[in-house]
Amino acid sequence: MPTEKYDIVIVGAGPVGLLLSTCLARWGYKIKHIDMRPEPTVTGRADGIQPRSLDLLRNMGLKRAIMAHEPAKVYEVAFWDPSEKSQGIHRTGTWPSCPSFLDARYPFTTLLHQGLIERVFIADMEKYGVKVQRPWRITGFENDGKDKEYPVEVKIAHVDGDEQETVRAKYLFSGEGARSFIREKLGVGITHKDPITHVWGVMDGVVRTNFPDIKMKCTIHSDAGSIMVIPREDNMVRLYIQIASSTDKDWNPRKQATTEEVQEAAKKIMKPYEIEWDRVEWYSVYPIGQGIADRYTLDERVFMGGDCCHTHSPKAGQGMNTAFLDAQNLAWKIHHVESGFADRSILKSYESERKLIAENLLNFDNAYARLFSQRQPSAGEVSSVTQQQDGEKQVEENEFIKMFKSSCEFTSGYGVAYNPNIFNWSKDHPAKSPLFLSNEDGTTTQRTGRIMTNATVTRVADANVVHLEQEIPLNGSWRIYLYGGEPSKTKRAISDFAAGLSKKGSFYSTFGHPNLDQVSYHERHNPHSLFFTINTIFNAKRPQIEIRDLLPKVLSRYFDHVYADDIWDQKVPDAKAAAHAKMGLSQEEGGVVIVRPDGYVGCVVKLVEGTGTVDALNSYFSTFTSKKVGGGERASL
Amino acid sequence: MPTEKYDIVIVGAGPVGLLLSTCLARWGYKIKHIDMRPEPTVTGRADGIQPRSLDLLRNMGLKRAIMAHEPAKVYEVAFWDPSEKSQGIHRTGTWPSCPSFLDARYPFTTLLHQGLIERVFIADMEKYGVKVQRPWRITGFENDGKDKEYPVEVKIAHVDGDEQETVRAKYLFSGEGARSFIREKLGVGITHKDPITHVWGVMDGVVRTNFPDIKMKCTIHSDAGSIMVIPREDNMVRLYIQIASSTDKDWNPRKQATTEEVQEAAKKIMKPYEIEWDRVEWYSVYPIGQGIADRYTLDERVFMGGDCCHTHSPKAGQGMNTAFLDAQNLAWKIHHVESGFADRSILKSYESERKLIAENLLNFDNAYARLFSQRQPSAGEVSSVTQQQDGEKQVEENEFIKMFKSSCEFTSGYGVAYNPNIFNWSKDHPAKSPLFLSNEDGTTTQRTGRIMTNATVTRVADANVVHLEQEIPLNGSWRIYLYGGEPSKTKRAISDFAAGLSKKGSFYSTFGHPNLDQVSYHERHNPHSLFFTINTIFNAKRPQIEIRDLLPKVLSRYFDHVYADDIWDQKVPDAKAAAHAKMGLSQEEGGVVIVRPDGYVGCVVKLVEGTGTVDALNSYFSTFTSKKVGGGERASL
Repeated sequence: MPTEKYDIVIVGAGPVGLLLSTCLARWGYKIKHIDMRPEPTVTGRADGIQPRSLDLLRNMGLKRAIMAHEPAKVYEVAFWDPSEKSQGIHRTGTWPSCPSFLDARYPFTTLLHQGLIERVFIADMEKYGVKVQRPWRITGFENDGKDKEYPVEVKIAHVDGDEQETVRAKYLFSGEGARSFIREKLGVGITHKDPITHVWGVMDGVVRTNFPDIKMKCTIHSDAGSIMVIPREDNMVRLYIQIASSTDKDWNPRKQATTEEVQEAAKKIMKPYEIEWDRVEWYSVYPIGQGIADRYTLDERVFMGGDCCHTHSPKAGQGMNTAFLDAQNLAWKIHHVESGFADRSILKSYESERKLIAENLLNFDNAYARLFSQRQPSAGEVSSVTQQQDGEKQVEENEFIKMFKSSCEFTSGYGVAYNPNIFNWSKDHPAKSPLFLSNEDGTTTQRTGRIMTNATVTRVADANVVHLEQEIPLNGSWRIYLYGGEPSKTKRAISDFAAGLSKKGSFYSTFGHPNLDQVSYHERHNPHSLFFTINTIFNAKRPQIEIRDLLPKVLSRYFDHVYADDIWDQKVPDAKAAAHAKMGLSQEEGGVVIVRPDGYVGCVVKLVEGTGTVDALNSYFSTFTSKKVGGGERASL
Repeated sequence: MPTEKYDIVIVGAGPVGLLLSTCLARWGYKIKHIDMRPEPTVTGRADGIQPRSLDLLRNMGLKRAIMAHEPAKVYEVAFWDPSEKSQGIHRTGTWPSCPSFLDARYPFTTLLHQGLIERVFIADMEKYGVKVQRPWRITGFENDGKDKEYPVEVKIAHVDGDEQETVRAKYLFSGEGARSFIREKLGVGITHKDPITHVWGVMDGVVRTNFPDIKMKCTIHSDAGSIMVIPREDNMVRLYIQIASSTDKDWNPRKQATTEEVQEAAKKIMKPYEIEWDRVEWYSVYPIGQGIADRYTLDERVFMGGDCCHTHSPKAGQGMNTAFLDAQNLAWKIHHVESGFADRSILKSYESERKLIAENLLNFDNAYARLFSQRQPSAGEVSSVTQQQDGEKQVEENEFIKMFKSSCEFTSGYGVAYNPNIFNWSKDHPAKSPLFLSNEDGTTTQRTGRIMTNATVTRVADANVVHLEQEIPLNGSWRIYLYGGEPSKTKRAISDFAAGLSKKGSFYSTFGHPNLDQVSYHERHNPHSLFFTINTIFNAKRPQIEIRDLLPKVLSRYFDHVYADDIWDQKVPDAKAAAHAKMGLSQEEGGVVIVRPDGYVGCVVKLVEGTGTVDALNSYFSTFTSKKVGGGERASL
């Protein structure tokens, strides 16, 4: 029997493996997905979906299925500290999970049991014919190159060892979690942030309490210890309770505690409030340090992501979210290489982009965990009182609260910022043109390597009010946002832009469908090419936009992606065209924003008459596309 | 074998029967539900969910399942009329489906195939153990009173006649549609609005066209005839095409037309645009007049609703929506009688309330259909040109467009206005108190018999930003909205209000749970009584509201229903407490809004110190409750 061949073997069906599998399954890849566990997560584990991750899930069409489980939503965090005269704890303040300056569509954290989240992905993958093979584990692998197209041999076996398979794959991915066979076999080390570790207990259950903030996220510091409270679906609450720290006199990283001991500790910490448990659904104790894998891949064939690459405390709710973004980042890059759009060298950027984010996370987590585990001064010890904006007195914030507030952008997921590279244009990028706009110059508000600002617009075809940043699903395409300014002023520039796109050898025409006439009349997103979708946004009222009059055919073919920038936005209350204004583009002359398939801004270019705009884009894309486009030179990553 | 007994037998599983069944199933009633068809609607039929109905479906927790089918959404309507010089049609204007002055949560019409909507209800009913018995029909019934509790005998049979059942029921409901066995047997006549009838063709299909508004709702008048365009899910479009009118020379109410004839007619009407069909999913021709049943019930045991009681043209998209509200209206009234809360006489208000709405609908439909079927003047025939607000010239509106615009409140569903009666307080209501507030006096914006204005607030317990009007699900409870004004100013009034509620013999304590100690600690909506839920809304910022400090125990028990009125609202931009302001209540002193279980305002009462507020409510409720409450006298309906 010939060895079965797969595009990818994915090991581990936690968040990182599932998101990767879901993307690649949708894009038509042949996947072998295994997991050691006989079924998805039953109780406990990760449960926080950050605002940015909810955007991503919505972009994948999975948000509705998540929300159908009626998860808890955390809009605000309450800080509780020791009160004066040792009378237990009192609330010293509250703070939004995702303050309004972040301008999130969903300014809350969504709390839902990881098993339910996993099942949403599994159901979706199955629509595309991918099933997780359970309980199976990996027993060996080698990038032996014996088959040029499928260079990796992978051996897997049923966990009871009776059945075995050997397959070949283009890629192997480890989403195994902290204990990774693949990482070990590759000899990739883990660098620990700090010798300090903590032992934490985590308990999910249903409680009865007169503690008023039991349905909020709370950080509680008392003289008897610290707790974090996280509300859950189905009236549950999760408590994180610190059991031991290396600063303790009797420090033991293997220290254990029973459910009852932890409940007793919680009762003491929460005084003067009372708390009783109806039931405990899950309880676990684990030591946590901050560790990061030294490499995410050695050969751009065997990759790792998620907890396999970064471990840290669960309290900032970042684990699953970072895993999602690892997977998303890798998915479109593999797709672009395997579908012939991009040069294989782009795969190096997976490690460089995602390891930076993990390092930021670990630095944050290290400081956060340290501050959280410190005893905070009681109200009596804090002398100064500050005056708030609304005239109310408030106790001065302690270090923990200050850090919490300053970290909101990071913890919400909107702080992810990739460094300049071949995708994220900067002055050092090989593509040179005076037409590139830059946040540093103040010529656009959009920052390359960061998520595009959201904007609400009216879709011209059906007058639906829509979220522009969500209009293209996560389908592996680059997103070209042509901000068309005022139609009367940009007529020529748009016509030149369209001509430039259509020209033989442009980035756009080079990667067109080989059989354009076989594309469905009703195809909305990819009528010309699998790799690009064009949105056009005009500074005009919807009824004034006649798509076929205003746009050349190459653009009007995206009939469902033409928008009127005519919705008022509280963030730019004086703008006539709010979306243009939020992007920092001229409301008259517009501009072009190029967004990566994962939603991060690639570059921003001025919209001008003549060939300049498309020339700049040819030069940008030619630095990583598999074929030479425009007149640009290929540069190395 | 003893005869099987049911609370209700429901005949017909269209929208009216299904909504009724779903409500009663959730509230614990024993239901026999039959339908003549072997399966739910396969293609065609009703498809428009109006904004108000979407509120209702959300209140039932069914909106997400509807939206999962990715229905089309109609935000705007385009008017097309004959252009000058007979060059075909041109757009003369557009208008929102649900203009912003209506302040709808969902300012669009949702278009989805009726079969999918039916299945959402069927899936929900099945959770409560109710299955539709198909294909079965009713063969006889009699309110013979032989069993006092189950006075109605009903005979049903399999459509092939081999199987038969005889059951007894407290109620029988006909949701059979226009051809009703029950209505016929009762001898209830249909009054026709007008001898004029029209023959319409309706065609669902997938088209290719360069008509720019194919994804909008359009009314097209051309010299070759009229068409209405309705977008659908899955790239489909519905066309309504008038085939014949009694004003035609060769008028024949049985006139037929083939698919091809109608397509040819459409092509002519839509010139200069082109249209071709990829496929036709459904096509039907039917004569339509406006008819209304003379009675909805003769004995308050056998009821009718939906198309059985009112038939009209489908073009304004009102049929299913009116059916939903028929069922909702009847459901809670039956529930209140059968659960011992209300006097049986309240059932009379089903006919008086719903027949009025049907009459309004028929008047509207009659005028609308007449205007729609008239040839409209071409641009050349219209002399005057008016200046729009934004300075642009626009052709003067014809009669049809004028009527369309003025009917938006009605067609969106927000125009439903029940007359004063025992539920809808007015100066003539038997409950007298100087504390009743009234829209007529300008002491509140809320109008009895109309839907409560929506408002966005912050839930105190978990800081979630929520839609206040949706916070209590459609569970058969009255909704008491205690607008608490500024806590410092209303402390005494609220404490007196709570004392009044708790007092023996109050409307509230009289209908408390018989076994209060058996109510779950986690019960959110009905901790005290099945018939009331109390929401308290304070004019204060969320962190300033300490529920257990501010509210007496009877109110703080509704811990999840305490809100901060601290969200800015564009409709009342200067208000500090937007929800208070939208209700037209004092932002300092608050007030109490009593909302019926179906969301319509019952009465509004001033919040004062002393016993007055609860006295007024006792007097209001005592007019229809089954037990005497407060000191009020029972009045007849």
